Amino acid sequence: MIIVLKPRTSDENVKRVENMVRAKGLEVHTVKGEDLTIIGCIGDTVRVDPKLFEVDSSVEKVMHVQEPYKLVNRAFHPDDTIVDVSGVKVGGGHLALIAGPCSVESEEQVIEIAKAVKASGANMLRGGAFKPRTSPYSFQGLGLEGLEILCAAREETGLPIVTELMSPEYLEIFDEKVDLIQIGARNMQNYDLLKQLGQTKRPILLKRGLNATYEEWMMSAEYIMASGNPNVILCERGIRTFETYTRNTLDLQSIPVVRKLSHLPVVVDPSHAGGKWWLVDPMAKASIAAGADGLIIEVHNSPETALCDGAQSLKPEKYDTLLKEITGIAKAVGKEM
Amino acid sequence: MIIVLKPRTSDENVKRVENMVRAKGLEVHTVKGEDLTIIGCIGDTVRVDPKLFEVDSSVEKVMHVQEPYKLVNRAFHPDDTIVDVSGVKVGGGHLALIAGPCSVESEEQVIEIAKAVKASGANMLRGGAFKPRTSPYSFQGLGLEGLEILCAAREETGLPIVTELMSPEYLEIFDEKVDLIQIGARNMQNYDLLKQLGQTKRPILLKRGLNATYEEWMMSAEYIMASGNPNVILCERGIRTFETYTRNTLDLQSIPVVRKLSHLPVVVDPSHAGGKWWLVDPMAKASIAAGADGLIIEVHNSPETALCDGAQSLKPEKYDTLLKEITGIAKAVGKEM
Amino acid sequence: MIIVLKPRTSDENVKRVENMVRAKGLEVHTVKGEDLTIIGCIGDTVRVDPKLFEVDSSVEKVMHVQEPYKLVNRAFHPDDTIVDVSGVKVGGGHLALIAGPCSVESEEQVIEIAKAVKASGANMLRGGAFKPRTSPYSFQGLGLEGLEILCAAREETGLPIVTELMSPEYLEIFDEKVDLIQIGARNMQNYDLLKQLGQTKRPILLKRGLNATYEEWMMSAEYIMASGNPNVILCERGIRTFETYTRNTLDLQSIPVVRKLSHLPVVVDPSHAGGKWWLVDPMAKASIAAGADGLIIEVHNSPETALCDGAQSLKPEKYDTLLKEITGIAKAVGKEM
Amino acid sequence: MIIVLKPRTSDENVKRVENMVRAKGLEVHTVKGEDLTIIGCIGDTVRVDPKLFEVDSSVEKVMHVQEPYKLVNRAFHPDDTIVDVSGVKVGGGHLALIAGPCSVESEEQVIEIAKAVKASGANMLRGGAFKPRTSPYSFQGLGLEGLEILCAAREETGLPIVTELMSPEYLEIFDEKVDLIQIGARNMQNYDLLKQLGQTKRPILLKRGLNATYEEWMMSAEYIMASGNPNVILCERGIRTFETYTRNTLDLQSIPVVRKLSHLPVVVDPSHAGGKWWLVDPMAKASIAAGADGLIIEVHNSPETALCDGAQSLKPEKYDTLLKEITGIAKAVGKEM
Repeated sequence: MIIVLKPRTSDENVKRVENMVRAKGLEVHTVKGEDLTIIGCIGDTVRVDPKLFEVDSSVEKVMHVQEPYKLVNRAFHPDDTIVDVSGVKVGGGHLALIAGPCSVESEEQVIEIAKAVKASGANMLRGGAFKPRTSPYSFQGLGLEGLEILCAAREETGLPIVTELMSPEYLEIFDEKVDLIQIGARNMQNYDLLKQLGQTKRPILLKRGLNATYEEWMMSAEYIMASGNPNVILCERGIRTFETYTRNTLDLQSIPVVRKLSHLPVVVDPSHAGGKWWLVDPMAKASIAAGADGLIIEVHNSPETALCDGAQSLKPEKYDTLLKEITGIAKAVGKEM
Repeated sequence: MIIVLKPRTSDENVKRVENMVRAKGLEVHTVKGEDLTIIGCIGDTVRVDPKLFEVDSSVEKVMHVQEPYKLVNRAFHPDDTIVDVSGVKVGGGHLALIAGPCSVESEEQVIEIAKAVKASGANMLRGGAFKPRTSPYSFQGLGLEGLEILCAAREETGLPIVTELMSPEYLEIFDEKVDLIQIGARNMQNYDLLKQLGQTKRPILLKRGLNATYEEWMMSAEYIMASGNPNVILCERGIRTFETYTRNTLDLQSIPVVRKLSHLPVVVDPSHAGGKWWLVDPMAKASIAAGADGLIIEVHNSPETALCDGAQSLKPEKYDTLLKEITGIAKAVGKEM
Repeated sequence: MIIVLKPRTSDENVKRVENMVRAKGLEVHTVKGEDLTIIGCIGDTVRVDPKLFEVDSSVEKVMHVQEPYKLVNRAFHPDDTIVDVSGVKVGGGHLALIAGPCSVESEEQVIEIAKAVKASGANMLRGGAFKPRTSPYSFQGLGLEGLEILCAAREETGLPIVTELMSPEYLEIFDEKVDLIQIGARNMQNYDLLKQLGQTKRPILLKRGLNATYEEWMMSAEYIMASGNPNVILCERGIRTFETYTRNTLDLQSIPVVRKLSHLPVVVDPSHAGGKWWLVDPMAKASIAAGADGLIIEVHNSPETALCDGAQSLKPEKYDTLLKEITGIAKAVGKEM
Repeated sequence: MIIVLKPRTSDENVKRVENMVRAKGLEVHTVKGEDLTIIGCIGDTVRVDPKLFEVDSSVEKVMHVQEPYKLVNRAFHPDDTIVDVSGVKVGGGHLALIAGPCSVESEEQVIEIAKAVKASGANMLRGGAFKPRTSPYSFQGLGLEGLEILCAAREETGLPIVTELMSPEYLEIFDEKVDLIQIGARNMQNYDLLKQLGQTKRPILLKRGLNATYEEWMMSAEYIMASGNPNVILCERGIRTFETYTRNTLDLQSIPVVRKLSHLPVVVDPSHAGGKWWLVDPMAKASIAAGADGLIIEVHNSPETALCDGAQSLKPEKYDTLLKEITGIAKAVGKEM
């Protein structure tokens, strides 16, 4: 952490600020120039809130030098983390190929889709039982009944299941039944929920919030890890920008950036990012080419009658073709399907 | 709702889409041009999800015409709603003047600040007991102990208290003890929490999410009203943009826009928006000039030692001067302090 | 400027970077911690591009400490600059009240509007002769003929005229005929145009670009001042965000921010920001309450038939009422109309 | 174009608006519902400005149905356009592989880099002679001298040259000497410059503005085509968002979107988007996987001493490896290098 003092700060005030820094257990190195005095703060700065100094009347600004996260940080864990989802490995060259309907609608539907995507090469099944919807009047998901349907599809196909947890109320039942617990973009900073995820060791799929910086995203993963659950997979799903032709702007630079900042695996959701099925194919390919550790894609056997987000769902045949075509790209970037 | 069909759609396909619309209980009016066929859908479109049609292979795009909210909508409730917060009226010309520390730190601190802001003219006391923090290593608030301190300050000063609810777990105790329950920006789309707010009749202060459009903000208020609680006050607190010199960009156009779209009162939080104390004074004045129904402002007796957000807190004397200067502006726009 | 080196940089490499810094004429102060080495660079850092160091393989990041502009900077010119526009003072308590039609359409139209706004209290006349339009098929303005019409309106009313320059080609004629030369938002970083503005001493109204940070805006003003023209008035007109209900998001925090960073006057254009006439009144009031040095407002005698941007134009009677109501607000913040 | 009228508009007013529409040469189809009256406007709506109707007191809103551009529109030109840049084909399966230094610094430097990138497989040479810089104190490029150096490098290697035009003043000399004229992001809406590009038939590389929507980008290309120059190549180079870790957010969804909206080729500049050399490799691969028609990449033989943007430049060896690795991806998406 670096504290820049205001021009012409008196020696007395410089000392005062230095003492505030030392009181937080940090070492102080002060640089005095003509116009400018800078205090370099050395030590465990992750646990010190820079805002505590910003408020001082002699302080011009406070700048972070080190990332404010530790457990998530690749600097302290240079090797790729490989997360094990009920036997399916994700990260370190292993691709998560997650597919399934946006919403769970019926057992027949889910099992049919699950069989199809498994045959194409998917290694996990997704499906929403509890759905976050902008409108209170939209279909909100089948809830626990939906969860049972997913379990039946797992029974039938052997695919581990991925579904979204919206409330701590259901954590216990998710811990028992769900293989990979998804935390949605709108709950990425629901800190109350994040803190409780240490009560399970189930892997967590943490989606990036619509307006989350890389640092905030890492901090939300840090919440989960600090609560006691080290099994976190990050998921890029687009950010909100001025462009409204697409639902969101898929930020594929996040893949190399996350791989530099963190040792955790990062997968991409091209279906929710664009909101249009014809964007899924090129963006899925681009994600793998950029080094993503997997894809989560909406597949529906009858998008026209889907209760939710049909417009962004692929038909099983298109998904099949996509996975075939991606194989060549995966090979070109050193990954096996 | 208007459905635009793709160029050269066959008569058969036009009929098929018309029948889909009718199946949702809407009336159909079709306009055929040379290049273009448009289906106008008339009826209770609020309850129909436009995405259901977007997915059809003959459909080019679907456009909303009416707002997708009803209870919040001024069109169905032309008069200003006046919310009563334990005797303090907000809206319809009545200003909420909410002030207090970011975090509750001690009984002595809160009571001292509460007395000061009351003497200056504040009519409600704010203070964070549960704090949403980006870092798991930052001070997370005193929790229930903080709530008791706020109650003691109310006892002492008579000011109704405003504090943030982060989890349904504490709803019952908030219902019992808090006069105005704040839902923070990061939880604006925590639908699970919103749905449960109908279990109380306490007024809700709903902050705008950092990336929420006006429509999404209205929809979150609609969730609360649809759950059975009609007492909602909206709060503009800045949105996230590319500009990072300020913490967020305060969007004061939201005041006239919300007043046009909705009958609910709208107040402004200039402290969190800018993140710098010297922005609070001009932005508070601008908010009142723009027609806001109140202000929520951080005041701290010792910003330098505040455990949270000291940099954006006013000292009591500055708050006192601000309220005095605002009186002239309030009068100029037809409001009484 | 502060250079943060990578963890475990060798002494040899530290020295190498120090020498690079010294070679740019800066003094070096190095702070070594366990994990971290920081090089503080003292001297005339405005003229040194930080990217030159970022590229070094031992450098983690480079952080600015001082603003990269001098002539525009309040630190080097503490008093408010008052710009004189053909006798009308702007800044330092003097308000620019600029009004007129979006486009110049006919002499009759412009003179009628000019007389009306002058009677209401406006002290300058605006009108577009050259119009930047998104579509090549939209009305592009009357060009030089429009300029002559504005001159005729000045002759008739005595109001100085404000109009947009889009190309260096017309700089000479603008220098001769225009009192305040507007540079539009889309040209804020047309550096070729900015550099040529030193050829005139006419005051320049520099609009903020739709995606310009405060620093970039200041840098564009620095271009003009560095080219030899010190008469710059800044104009906030809204930035592009994710919110599309309004044309742009008016950023009124820019007023106190610009007043802190710079000594130049700053005015607000509430007409273009929102794109809706009913937003102009509340936002004009908010701008003055926030400390703006003036307003530029579109007024049209027949918005329904305007060739451009009628939807955001006030009728003369509304403008008259607005100026009357603003008087009370101006007084409350210590300004005279 | 669809015009939605306000609820309860009188028949007389409906007729009045219908007549306004007919006066613009459009056909009228009106749909009347209980709450809602909609006027469908059929005909050549591209040439009618929707704002002309928005202003009417009976009109609620006006919605575009068709894109406001024609020459650029794939609907009117279904086949991919292949642009010929002095013998190098771009589009329709042909990749532009453009590489070279950010700024032209010396003949020796440019020729050395040109030979290296040609040996790796590049088919065009880029280099900045005129540089748009945020600061007036930064290196502004060698100007015409830089242009001569590029010509010498073309002479030596046979590679067509690509360089940025910032002012109409130099159009004639660019027409004579430059193979592909670049219009930079900051000038994407410099309409005065765009209009003059019809004076040359040289292909234009039109970069997307930092805050340009897809539609605005298409409209700027329409300006060039409408001025008489049909040879336009689009270039995605990142947009400005709230994320500041990277310089800009590279929007790769733009590739399939542009390919749907337009027949023009689209290439990607991963160097300027991220601003960091280690992002170039994964983003270049992702661009090709997403279907881009080429890449423009900064290559410098000594990034550490580059006068501009060294931090985002690849060394020639890395560029060589990148092109080799991209070959597999290009093949997987059906393109030949």
